[in-house]
Amino acid sequence: MELVNQALSGNRRAMARLISQVENDNSLAAATRATIYAHTGRARVIGVTGAPGTGKSTLVCELAKAYRHAGQMVGIIAVDPTSPFTGGAILGDRIRMRDLAGDPGVFIRSMATRGNLGGLARATADVTQILDAAGYDVILVETVGAGQSEVDIARAADTTLVVEAPGLGDEVQAIKAGILEIADVLVVNKADRDGAANAVRALQAMLDLGATPRTVSHHGVTMTVGVPVSAHSDSASDWRPPILQTVALEGKGITKVVDAIARHQAYLAESDEGETRRRARIKAELEAILRETLLRRLMKNLAPADLAKTVDRIAAREIDPHTAAKELLARLP
Amino acid sequence: MELVNQALSGNRRAMARLISQVENDNSLAAATRATIYAHTGRARVIGVTGAPGTGKSTLVCELAKAYRHAGQMVGIIAVDPTSPFTGGAILGDRIRMRDLAGDPGVFIRSMATRGNLGGLARATADVTQILDAAGYDVILVETVGAGQSEVDIARAADTTLVVEAPGLGDEVQAIKAGILEIADVLVVNKADRDGAANAVRALQAMLDLGATPRTVSHHGVTMTVGVPVSAHSDSASDWRPPILQTVALEGKGITKVVDAIARHQAYLAESDEGETRRRARIKAELEAILRETLLRRLMKNLAPADLAKTVDRIAAREIDPHTAAKELLARLP
Repeated sequence: MELVNQALSGNRRAMARLISQVENDNSLAAATRATIYAHTGRARVIGVTGAPGTGKSTLVCELAKAYRHAGQMVGIIAVDPTSPFTGGAILGDRIRMRDLAGDPGVFIRSMATRGNLGGLARATADVTQILDAAGYDVILVETVGAGQSEVDIARAADTTLVVEAPGLGDEVQAIKAGILEIADVLVVNKADRDGAANAVRALQAMLDLGATPRTVSHHGVTMTVGVPVSAHSDSASDWRPPILQTVALEGKGITKVVDAIARHQAYLAESDEGETRRRARIKAELEAILRETLLRRLMKNLAPADLAKTVDRIAAREIDPHTAAKELLARLP
Repeated sequence: MELVNQALSGNRRAMARLISQVENDNSLAAATRATIYAHTGRARVIGVTGAPGTGKSTLVCELAKAYRHAGQMVGIIAVDPTSPFTGGAILGDRIRMRDLAGDPGVFIRSMATRGNLGGLARATADVTQILDAAGYDVILVETVGAGQSEVDIARAADTTLVVEAPGLGDEVQAIKAGILEIADVLVVNKADRDGAANAVRALQAMLDLGATPRTVSHHGVTMTVGVPVSAHSDSASDWRPPILQTVALEGKGITKVVDAIARHQAYLAESDEGETRRRARIKAELEAILRETLLRRLMKNLAPADLAKTVDRIAAREIDPHTAAKELLARLP
């Protein structure tokens, strides 16, 4: 537990090693998680999500600088293959990140996708907890904002920013119908571009409208339209997401975003919503762990040849995957 | 099983009802799945993935028309909140879709995100199987191409098209590092725009380079860079993705895409790769089912009050989620 104590006191090398330990889920991971968890609950987790091209990485960078300026320790977790934090970057971005990377009060971690469904959200939760326990005040989680895992990750944040930008084409506008549901603060970045006012108006109209799913029949084909990627929507909220304009590249509008985040966090603290979200998040995390643990236990009890044979039979269409799953489960002691 | 027989003979109403049945996972679902599954394995599943703004829905539309022209039955599954098939559309797109929607040889289904991790990939697999069994020759699955669930869904395809477009900004270019790994065919759509040749060259260079993950230390911060969203990458492939240019809005270049898909499918049939992918897909589906089934069984055996109490203790930081999961499992008979 020496390593854990070092990490808790903010030693960066120890934190990095701890993260690897938990990611690899080795024999020490359980004890590590248990010790770490008792020290969590202080950090504010802020999700920043948006399509590629909206400049959300630059916004994350500027928010990090603002919080640093206020003396806060800042963690950045990039769950986005397009993020400069993840290396999918152009030179200009990397140069901007350099100010942060040299700052001992900033810890940056990019999450690799592991190829297994759900692993990403859980790994992100683990890293968030380690940063939280290590004394980071603000944790910025950047996701690409399209895709279910990303929505699940955004849902794990206390406050979720959805970033838009003008002039990304009509199809991009359409993404809002789904993503609006998870927004606590809406940011129109690149607001010096043509169309910024239009983007704000469109968002305003969408907020007024509300995004309710409906099924329409369209020339004999039934389609579900405007399905919200509902995350926080289960609890009716009194919070109306403010719409803010920024030019992150020039640092413009950042203070207003920081203020809006602070107001939202005050709202969470005063209303029931903070508590409701926290419980929903815990329940989801618990279920994800149970799912993985149960599968791992099952796999341990199965002979590899049994599994291969089952796959053969499914491939030959002798049995469907659901019935095969039942058979495998029935064979357990 | 009357409904199943009707669906197998291609009755659209029966298919729609069957899909609902399987989605709601009601008491009939198990028998339905088992019957359906025996009739699957004929359809070619083609994933079409790309960022918003690349025009992939229009490409899907044109591919569907081309296959229809060749006398094939076409299923379209849209797993993308920005897709016009899902209703997140502008008028022009909807008008283009109308030709398809009125065609009895085309079945369109949009998938709602359900809010639970993993559900989307499984539901998509179920719908694919129903369309396959109902005699649809080609199933086009459209995903937004960013996000882990979407990658998992793309992985379930026999052939995956990755769609790019010129002039979507530098950040969009960066997405390729991750997404290239799952591409069997690369399409630069909107090729009449400035920058198309550049986009092709950039893709070419990236293919030459290969996308290998590497860890770099950058001003004391360790980052993993260029992490591939590895899907098919576990099996070294002799297939080099062709890069094709299209102007889907004008129907240009579609024939070449259809040809490339056919060549890839011939390659899959001749090499081991088709079989390897099919087995990997079956194994992933089986594991996903096992995970959900195991969790559901566990939840049935737990008193709701027990679960609520566990959430309370986690919220109070008395226990971490992993240890709590272990406790819940230990309590089982």
